[in-house]
Amino acid sequence: MELKVKILDIETGKYVVLMNDEDARDLGIHASDRVDISADSGAITSMINITESSILEGGIGIFDEVKRALGLKEGDVVKVSSARRPKSIEYIRKKVDGFKLNDYEIKTIIRDIVDNNLSDIELSGFITASYIHPADTNETIAMIRAMVETGEQMDFGGGVIDKHSIGGVAGNRTTMLLVPIIASSGLIMPKTSSRAITSASGTSDTMEVLANVTFDIEEIKRIVNRTNGCMVWGGAVNLAPADDKIIRVEYPLSIDPDSQMLASVLAKKKSVGAKNLIIDIPVGKGSKISNEERGNELARKFIEFGSKLDIKVRCLVTDGSSPIGYGIGPALEAIDVLIALDNKKFDEKRVPWDLINKSLDMAGAAFELADPKLTKGDGRAVAEKILFSGRAMKKMRQIIEAQGGNPEISADDIEVGDKTHVITSDRKGKVRFISNWRIAQVARAAGAPKNKQAGVYLGVGVGDSVKAGDPLFTIYSKSENKLEQAIALSAALKPVQVGGVIIGEVF
Amino acid sequence: MELKVKILDIETGKYVVLMNDEDARDLGIHASDRVDISADSGAITSMINITESSILEGGIGIFDEVKRALGLKEGDVVKVSSARRPKSIEYIRKKVDGFKLNDYEIKTIIRDIVDNNLSDIELSGFITASYIHPADTNETIAMIRAMVETGEQMDFGGGVIDKHSIGGVAGNRTTMLLVPIIASSGLIMPKTSSRAITSASGTSDTMEVLANVTFDIEEIKRIVNRTNGCMVWGGAVNLAPADDKIIRVEYPLSIDPDSQMLASVLAKKKSVGAKNLIIDIPVGKGSKISNEERGNELARKFIEFGSKLDIKVRCLVTDGSSPIGYGIGPALEAIDVLIALDNKKFDEKRVPWDLINKSLDMAGAAFELADPKLTKGDGRAVAEKILFSGRAMKKMRQIIEAQGGNPEISADDIEVGDKTHVITSDRKGKVRFISNWRIAQVARAAGAPKNKQAGVYLGVGVGDSVKAGDPLFTIYSKSENKLEQAIALSAALKPVQVGGVIIGEVF
Repeated sequence: MELKVKILDIETGKYVVLMNDEDARDLGIHASDRVDISADSGAITSMINITESSILEGGIGIFDEVKRALGLKEGDVVKVSSARRPKSIEYIRKKVDGFKLNDYEIKTIIRDIVDNNLSDIELSGFITASYIHPADTNETIAMIRAMVETGEQMDFGGGVIDKHSIGGVAGNRTTMLLVPIIASSGLIMPKTSSRAITSASGTSDTMEVLANVTFDIEEIKRIVNRTNGCMVWGGAVNLAPADDKIIRVEYPLSIDPDSQMLASVLAKKKSVGAKNLIIDIPVGKGSKISNEERGNELARKFIEFGSKLDIKVRCLVTDGSSPIGYGIGPALEAIDVLIALDNKKFDEKRVPWDLINKSLDMAGAAFELADPKLTKGDGRAVAEKILFSGRAMKKMRQIIEAQGGNPEISADDIEVGDKTHVITSDRKGKVRFISNWRIAQVARAAGAPKNKQAGVYLGVGVGDSVKAGDPLFTIYSKSENKLEQAIALSAALKPVQVGGVIIGEVF
Repeated sequence: MELKVKILDIETGKYVVLMNDEDARDLGIHASDRVDISADSGAITSMINITESSILEGGIGIFDEVKRALGLKEGDVVKVSSARRPKSIEYIRKKVDGFKLNDYEIKTIIRDIVDNNLSDIELSGFITASYIHPADTNETIAMIRAMVETGEQMDFGGGVIDKHSIGGVAGNRTTMLLVPIIASSGLIMPKTSSRAITSASGTSDTMEVLANVTFDIEEIKRIVNRTNGCMVWGGAVNLAPADDKIIRVEYPLSIDPDSQMLASVLAKKKSVGAKNLIIDIPVGKGSKISNEERGNELARKFIEFGSKLDIKVRCLVTDGSSPIGYGIGPALEAIDVLIALDNKKFDEKRVPWDLINKSLDMAGAAFELADPKLTKGDGRAVAEKILFSGRAMKKMRQIIEAQGGNPEISADDIEVGDKTHVITSDRKGKVRFISNWRIAQVARAAGAPKNKQAGVYLGVGVGDSVKAGDPLFTIYSKSENKLEQAIALSAALKPVQVGGVIIGEVF
């Protein structure tokens, strides 16, 4: 069938075209079937959507991806014929029916996911079925290998260390201490991180206060070859690209199976050539992993799957019940990081010791993992020496420079919002709880992460005694309006809880 | 957040808008989250898609449905804020986790399906989970009731009879004999049918050769009040609209759970107020239901669920291994129907006795169902009397007229394709098998169902003895080119099998 091109200037993320229902019926195809489209410049296979009115009979709506692939313009004529659907759909159906998939079938599905050959309906069928019939160890390993193979990969030889924190803890910027500490030791840490979507800042948002974070894979290799480390945005690199595409489908259904999380983390780490991996599993009230038992279970799986992928894994179950560090929001967190790296030069009260301690423990674990001759427990001393000698700060400056930032920057050079407000305690008592989620919402209301200078600076930690009127935290914003919103939200959410021994009442 | 409208002139079937990723991050929302959009004219809740380039920061891409709902035009400014996702998603998640859903939860999901409030990802999660954790009787009944309540309904008082054939048998136009026979008796049969997508003709395509089939619900009521029956296209009426939306999602994954098929059929029948229902379940090689045992199982479920909905059901398990009637394709099937209704006036060789017999048996079963005083087995005599007395033909003419067709039409008035070709047998032997699917493909290649005059006319039936060179079937087309394609396909598929006792060879 010959159809006349109507250009629809919209990205869809897939090869998809829009056809009139009469033409579709003529070809005997349904919505979500496939068609072969051929033009002078070549041919592709595309999904179809069907419309009664947006495209008239004899026309074909061409979205951006197909337009670019075939170099089409308005009024061109293309040949359209019914095509087979991808083999993956048969394997997805097999998974739906509860059968195990073999390596080839998993790889075929992952390849089609990466190539955007599957519709949302098909993808969601796979994700839902994989949640109900969880992947076994073989399937998970096959999936991780397929995710790695279908993306870009880095190889820095041996000695590559990586870390991952299960999210949810505000201000948890250990990566920005770990990378300089570990890179200082001669080991290699090519770290990719994410940006915040629902939190107040991701590592990439915070690092971006100090340097660029968007680099392609060749630029990352050059930075790491020069400095042994980097802190870049993973979104700009094509490492295990299946992962984001799978997460996009899991999100609306709130499906987050352990096997998928393991696959997601390990595939990215395998892609950067990690041989050693530290996992930070925060547990406790308000964190993603509700209790230590679940944390331990997850840790055991990380270690098991890691070993099958030739990655040595140590999992640290950490206290995730309250924020780490004082700053929450890109600039305020960057200040914490620079003070932590240069801790001798600053007023003791400004030094985020919980961030330093957590980072030193994690770096110590990494050193012990990379060097089997180190006795367990001795790694932290190596990390302390690097940090307190100023070598980590020096390394940080090298990395900032390699990533195009100002290597001379100091904590006090970093600008924060000039509209501020101090939230005080309304009672005398102990700080019993600081909610990660609530404090992040206040920081977001103030403008974070988009406005890097916005956020919250905690003046107290859990266990501190305060009096009525004592400051709890300061809100920073660039906009009077957003500051007001953050103040109002703070009053409603009470992110810092003073007193409150009673946690409920039974009627 | 205020965003500037960019009109995207495309129907999406849902409320959906396109936002730049920076704005989405600012609102803290992901793709497939919901936003409230308010303009001067009102407010709606919409799904969002996220783009990096098709829409710039500060803009919002507005598809057809949202444009019309809010009366927006290019350059308008709308207020956008993050909104809650529909409650249904929570219930879908419950189903994914294997829990039973209660009536309220099912109704909420069905309502959101009908209102297009769910994304493909969410819908597919529900359909996949419902397949893996099949609905029990309570859930299926709740779903049927919800499907009925969320659509239009008809009420003709008592005496309404309906029928349904599980598809897959070529030429199976029993509806077009049943409706006039049953309507002649004074019972009411407001029949809605489908059009062909992958077959050579649907009942609506065939009826459309004789009359209009596209009517809204008020027009249908007027037709039925005049004639006691109708044969109209279900696609133009909003009966149990959830059904089509569910089928659209099942199709790509080839998911077709019994519970869904039962719900689909019974909801449509309940919506037209059917009190009595005949189900035709064709079984055998090449039909949808592979064997009698599966057919019986399905029949028992139809009867059980029907009784819970106050619909008396009789299920006839029929021979579905070969086509019913001679014609395959709209016009050729319409000729069969008119000859069957007026059978005394035509050469005996042209009368499709298998179609007549099947229809009489089904009509007889319907009469017995509607009139408990009739002894089982006596219904057929009633049907025969109506058909052979010419009353059914008279009723058919009334219905054709009520639906805007020519009531004087005769089988020989119906035009068929003038390009024809006779396929002959290449051997002597018995006709052992006529493939429903293959013969339909040949008819489609000739132009059916879009070209009503195209199709295949069978000259033989299973069991007939033929010699080499004897005609098997004739292909009709309006186009020389399509005729050639149909001839070639016929040579490749061999839809009519002569001899062929050997069905395989073991090596």
